[in-house]
Amino acid sequence: MMQKKLLLLTVSIILNLVFTIHILYYSSTTWNPTWTNRAAAEAETAASFSCSGHGRAFVDGLGVLDGQKPPCECNSCYIGKDCSVLLKDCPVDANSGDPLFLEPFWMRQAERSAVLVSGWHRMSYIYEDGTYVSRELEKVIRKLHSVVGNAVTDNRFVIFGSGTTQLLAAAVHALSLTNSSVSSPARLLTSIPYYAMYKDQAEFFDSAHLKFEGDASAWKQSGRNDNITQVIEVVTSPNNPDGKLKRAVLDGPNVKTLHDYAYYWPHFSPITHPVDEDLSLFSLSKTTGHAGSRFGWGLVKDKAIYEKMDRFIRLTSMGVSKETQLHVLQLLKVVVGDGGNEIFNFGYGTVKKRWETLNKIFSMSTRFSLQTIKPEYCNYFKKVREFTPSYAWVKCERPEDTNCYEIFRAAKITGRNGNVFGSEERFVRLSLIRSQDDFDQLIAMLKKLVYHEEDVPSENFMYI
Amino acid sequence: MMQKKLLLLTVSIILNLVFTIHILYYSSTTWNPTWTNRAAAEAETAASFSCSGHGRAFVDGLGVLDGQKPPCECNSCYIGKDCSVLLKDCPVDANSGDPLFLEPFWMRQAERSAVLVSGWHRMSYIYEDGTYVSRELEKVIRKLHSVVGNAVTDNRFVIFGSGTTQLLAAAVHALSLTNSSVSSPARLLTSIPYYAMYKDQAEFFDSAHLKFEGDASAWKQSGRNDNITQVIEVVTSPNNPDGKLKRAVLDGPNVKTLHDYAYYWPHFSPITHPVDEDLSLFSLSKTTGHAGSRFGWGLVKDKAIYEKMDRFIRLTSMGVSKETQLHVLQLLKVVVGDGGNEIFNFGYGTVKKRWETLNKIFSMSTRFSLQTIKPEYCNYFKKVREFTPSYAWVKCERPEDTNCYEIFRAAKITGRNGNVFGSEERFVRLSLIRSQDDFDQLIAMLKKLVYHEEDVPSENFMYI
Repeated sequence: MMQKKLLLLTVSIILNLVFTIHILYYSSTTWNPTWTNRAAAEAETAASFSCSGHGRAFVDGLGVLDGQKPPCECNSCYIGKDCSVLLKDCPVDANSGDPLFLEPFWMRQAERSAVLVSGWHRMSYIYEDGTYVSRELEKVIRKLHSVVGNAVTDNRFVIFGSGTTQLLAAAVHALSLTNSSVSSPARLLTSIPYYAMYKDQAEFFDSAHLKFEGDASAWKQSGRNDNITQVIEVVTSPNNPDGKLKRAVLDGPNVKTLHDYAYYWPHFSPITHPVDEDLSLFSLSKTTGHAGSRFGWGLVKDKAIYEKMDRFIRLTSMGVSKETQLHVLQLLKVVVGDGGNEIFNFGYGTVKKRWETLNKIFSMSTRFSLQTIKPEYCNYFKKVREFTPSYAWVKCERPEDTNCYEIFRAAKITGRNGNVFGSEERFVRLSLIRSQDDFDQLIAMLKKLVYHEEDVPSENFMYI
Repeated sequence: MMQKKLLLLTVSIILNLVFTIHILYYSSTTWNPTWTNRAAAEAETAASFSCSGHGRAFVDGLGVLDGQKPPCECNSCYIGKDCSVLLKDCPVDANSGDPLFLEPFWMRQAERSAVLVSGWHRMSYIYEDGTYVSRELEKVIRKLHSVVGNAVTDNRFVIFGSGTTQLLAAAVHALSLTNSSVSSPARLLTSIPYYAMYKDQAEFFDSAHLKFEGDASAWKQSGRNDNITQVIEVVTSPNNPDGKLKRAVLDGPNVKTLHDYAYYWPHFSPITHPVDEDLSLFSLSKTTGHAGSRFGWGLVKDKAIYEKMDRFIRLTSMGVSKETQLHVLQLLKVVVGDGGNEIFNFGYGTVKKRWETLNKIFSMSTRFSLQTIKPEYCNYFKKVREFTPSYAWVKCERPEDTNCYEIFRAAKITGRNGNVFGSEERFVRLSLIRSQDDFDQLIAMLKKLVYHEEDVPSENFMYI
């Protein structure tokens, strides 16, 4: 009896010791969130909804103001509270270059890529040095170019914009003002097929100093190429829509060149050399996939041009949102952390696989053809690699298929009409960088379309 | 002996029970952060630096890329690692309207105002409904106007911009295009003294459709007021720089009016009525103090004007950053949560106290005078209240003091020259909405300046 009691006492005291150690240990090593608790919990809750893998919930989803849990926002063609229902025969969106192919990458990098924005985060118009530009963000951007090897940043000013969209407008504006002694407006030129934004901006702003003139080669061969009229040539390389590397067509004392390198990343193209131009623009949207953040940057050699662009940014938005700059800093920190290894392998791997699938289908078609680009040596991956452009630039080969966009639309695939790019309607652009669901549906519809060509035997479809 | 042991056993078992309950309770009620842990811990660390109350550290401060702790960023005139050293005779910055007077409010609202941005937060260009606009944010903005009673939002489109800056450009652009059949450019008019941005934007963009013409009253009285030439009048109410409520000067079929209500909040002005105009602009900067977020919004009655503004926003930035919209949603949720009670009492209280101090000093001066505005009934505070403008609009009364800005600069106070506002150099604008440190230093320097007027007896300074 006595011994039993002694044993009980001993066990009880030992248990007490264990408990005491447990509590002391946890209160000293577990970090206890205080004011960040609510925000973190809300983010974790939203992230915990799987939405059947065909959608996601965001902390600022519909209804959260009324205290509801954020709802699943489904990928196209998926519906239902948990995005589990796939609509049959749903039309495919292959129009915009919404870069959601990188979303799964960032979901896997959840811990490293999150930022917590405090309520008093950088309320001032300016940073400590009096500018609108985060110096740490500038630093990580220079580092990014150095690890990827796609651009020289020495002796360059770095300028930030609300997307490359704002920087394009700023750059064209700055370049059009460089020679005000010439009375006729500067001509904006580019190569067909071209990204429509160049034309749309120039026409919309309808400046007395600028006129969009279309194709640079046509201009060069025309009599209007007088070596006096000021000319701005936009070079998009890799090109949107066809993914080809491009060089300037024009030169001369009256020519200013603006390089749009939005797609010059290992996801899409061999990195053949570090570009070293007067004025280069880059876009976060096509680097990390964050189109929604509206962030782009430019590398500018000439101080006077930089200052004019800076004034443009100041007079149209007073710089870029501080929340955005904070988030972009964190994202790029993750990217450069391993020299871009994870993100570019993921991005390239994803787009490459999509091209393989696509090529298989189109190889069976005589009705449609795709752009082809010869592989080149990539300094980033240290090997010869194929191009994996963001977009398929599809040509309808049959003489009667004059409007390729409509042919695809009838097959429930919405691309972008070739005429939007200054090209023929015989071309249509299909986006390959959207979500996996969008791509899978595109493939399903493409198979049907190609399958219905009379000369394609059905057994060819067994393995794709 | 036996009893002692029994007592020990009982105590030990009770202790065991207490520990068990403690552990069970904490493991069930303490939420354990997972992927949000790093971001939250970094934010808490930065926030834990007090910087002697004369600065603050931000998670994206200089050196954080290299793994350093974020440094204190000191208010002007404070230096040292912890911002504890006040520089003697340091020149005062009273120039820009950086709204840091609200920073202490948001520091107190730390828990409610924080947001955690995940790495995959809204990577798409668009929201679920295909627009660039968060519907929840639109909802909370309508709610904000309804609780403050400063604007009617029914039958209005809400448009977002990267600061009111972008919306101003968008609005003027849209209004200048409304009648393209008239060949001469639309004239942009406002009332002196005016916010320089209107003029600077118009002159910088140098559009064929718009010409800045200055003072609306002067135009009205001139022969050029022909009722045919298209006219855009910007009405800033309360006015920047002088804080007065304003009405449009011009009317007629050829007149379009654009209302800039950036300062129409209880911090600065009695809310005399809910404004109900065709096109009104508001700025987050002067509502919550978040100038760095670059967020503004417009209320637009006419669909065609709204669509033109929307196209302007699309072609200059493709909408506003999603990180920003997320943060603004959270901030405004805090504001409307108690009907604006806390923030507007804090803001009004702060600016009112500053005006009391300022009035005391200027009441002793014959050399300088301040604007005066008669108190009015405020529908928000339900009482007659004085105006508490963001800026002191100071006049140098002595005939020889022709350049008031220089007089103040010689006294180590940098304001903004009256001529920047289209007014005389006899005026200077002093900002009263900056940090408390900036204001305190302004007061110290003002005292010295007024003290040195020959006719002010020194004992007047004993009590201020």
